[in-house]
Amino acid sequence: MSKTILPKITLVGAGPGDPELISVKGLKAIKEADVILYDALVNVQLLNESKSDAIVIYVGKRKGEKEYEQSEINKLIVSYSLTHGHVVRLKGGDSFVFGRGSEELEYAHQFGIETHVVPGISSSISVPALAGIPVTHRGVSNSFTVITGTLSDGSLNPEIENALQLNGTLVILMGLSKLKEIQALYNSKGKQDTSVAVISNGSLPEQRAVFGNFNSILEEVKAYEIKAPGIIVIGEVVNVLRKNKELIDQLALVK
Amino acid sequence: MSKTILPKITLVGAGPGDPELISVKGLKAIKEADVILYDALVNVQLLNESKSDAIVIYVGKRKGEKEYEQSEINKLIVSYSLTHGHVVRLKGGDSFVFGRGSEELEYAHQFGIETHVVPGISSSISVPALAGIPVTHRGVSNSFTVITGTLSDGSLNPEIENALQLNGTLVILMGLSKLKEIQALYNSKGKQDTSVAVISNGSLPEQRAVFGNFNSILEEVKAYEIKAPGIIVIGEVVNVLRKNKELIDQLALVK
Repeated sequence: MSKTILPKITLVGAGPGDPELISVKGLKAIKEADVILYDALVNVQLLNESKSDAIVIYVGKRKGEKEYEQSEINKLIVSYSLTHGHVVRLKGGDSFVFGRGSEELEYAHQFGIETHVVPGISSSISVPALAGIPVTHRGVSNSFTVITGTLSDGSLNPEIENALQLNGTLVILMGLSKLKEIQALYNSKGKQDTSVAVISNGSLPEQRAVFGNFNSILEEVKAYEIKAPGIIVIGEVVNVLRKNKELIDQLALVK
Repeated sequence: MSKTILPKITLVGAGPGDPELISVKGLKAIKEADVILYDALVNVQLLNESKSDAIVIYVGKRKGEKEYEQSEINKLIVSYSLTHGHVVRLKGGDSFVFGRGSEELEYAHQFGIETHVVPGISSSISVPALAGIPVTHRGVSNSFTVITGTLSDGSLNPEIENALQLNGTLVILMGLSKLKEIQALYNSKGKQDTSVAVISNGSLPEQRAVFGNFNSILEEVKAYEIKAPGIIVIGEVVNVLRKNKELIDQLALVK
């Protein structure tokens, strides 16, 4: 007797890195998946939760290497769902925050395949949080903008300049290599005193965060050897909770 | 023998409403808590996971009733941690996205109490996602701004006008009662054709979403009886995945 294949694709956001910051529903999808296609920023500990006969494939794009083009990933997701059933597409953070998850859904929909989305804890909010930075705080910031620092052609995202019109918090993802240009932009507007933090390895034991303003942040990043991928947080919220640094340092360390 | 009390406060984001959209770590904190203080937007099913002898208290603020002031909640959190040990402060979405979680931490830090943060899946990203709207999509939107529609004095947040300078997605929380004013703002800028969606009860079986532009959205909201709290999503991302409505309708329904 042959098994009937029911093609199904579930996009799952794995969260910022700590394997316990995936949702209960996301973990359940991993446990049930016939095939898992995962990205560079996913904590590989989560893969231990998969079925013993699940097919688990790395399709990440790391700097300097390009193993899979997005179009190839789209095809892999669809073809595995047709041949093996339930495909879980596992991504760092949330699939819809610069995760190209919507492109994968668009492609799958052309084949009429059933798709589901399990949202993830986005690094854009949670990584600042675990470094002691609330993206909103009453009387300080009543909005936040999340933006990619680098466009697909490698240039600085011009939307960052537009975002300076807002009084709220600015969170820049994929922007660490552009920090000098971003600093120049703030300085050109006379905003060099704006508070800024840079965080790498957010939510993991290796988490590092540096704090300063646009006069000092480049040196801080250099001095503490903060490496990409990093998250840049700009605005007065950076300072809200830092009055008590010792207590902030516990934030990420839930026992 | 008296038990030694170790005061500890953990802010936990419960996610958008679906009880399986809490993080694994957040659920663990609920199971271990001695005291849980929870808000209106938390799914009460999660409270069933608490210890049998845990103290569970509702401190939500619902429209029309004001059971607890924020200052009272701050005091309750601290005093329960001192008398009972581990207090979990459970909030809808994420504690730092208009959740006033940072105010509670600030207050607790004055007493030197150990605090932790377990980020949640923010409704600002996940509710659009489960209605088929990716907040970012390559070639359509490379930024998103999350903003509160209503200030604490009840007026329209003036930052919304500044946000019109950006080309990205705008997500307005606590703005449904201001939809007419927001429409007037877009119309005054000649932007009445801007796509907009309004979603209520996101991620729950009762989820409702309406789609349109600033010529039609008020009537849609009225016709489908969309009630607050609702999330307003503005921008071209609203249409990206809607070409295949039938498949979109499955998104939230992971079996």
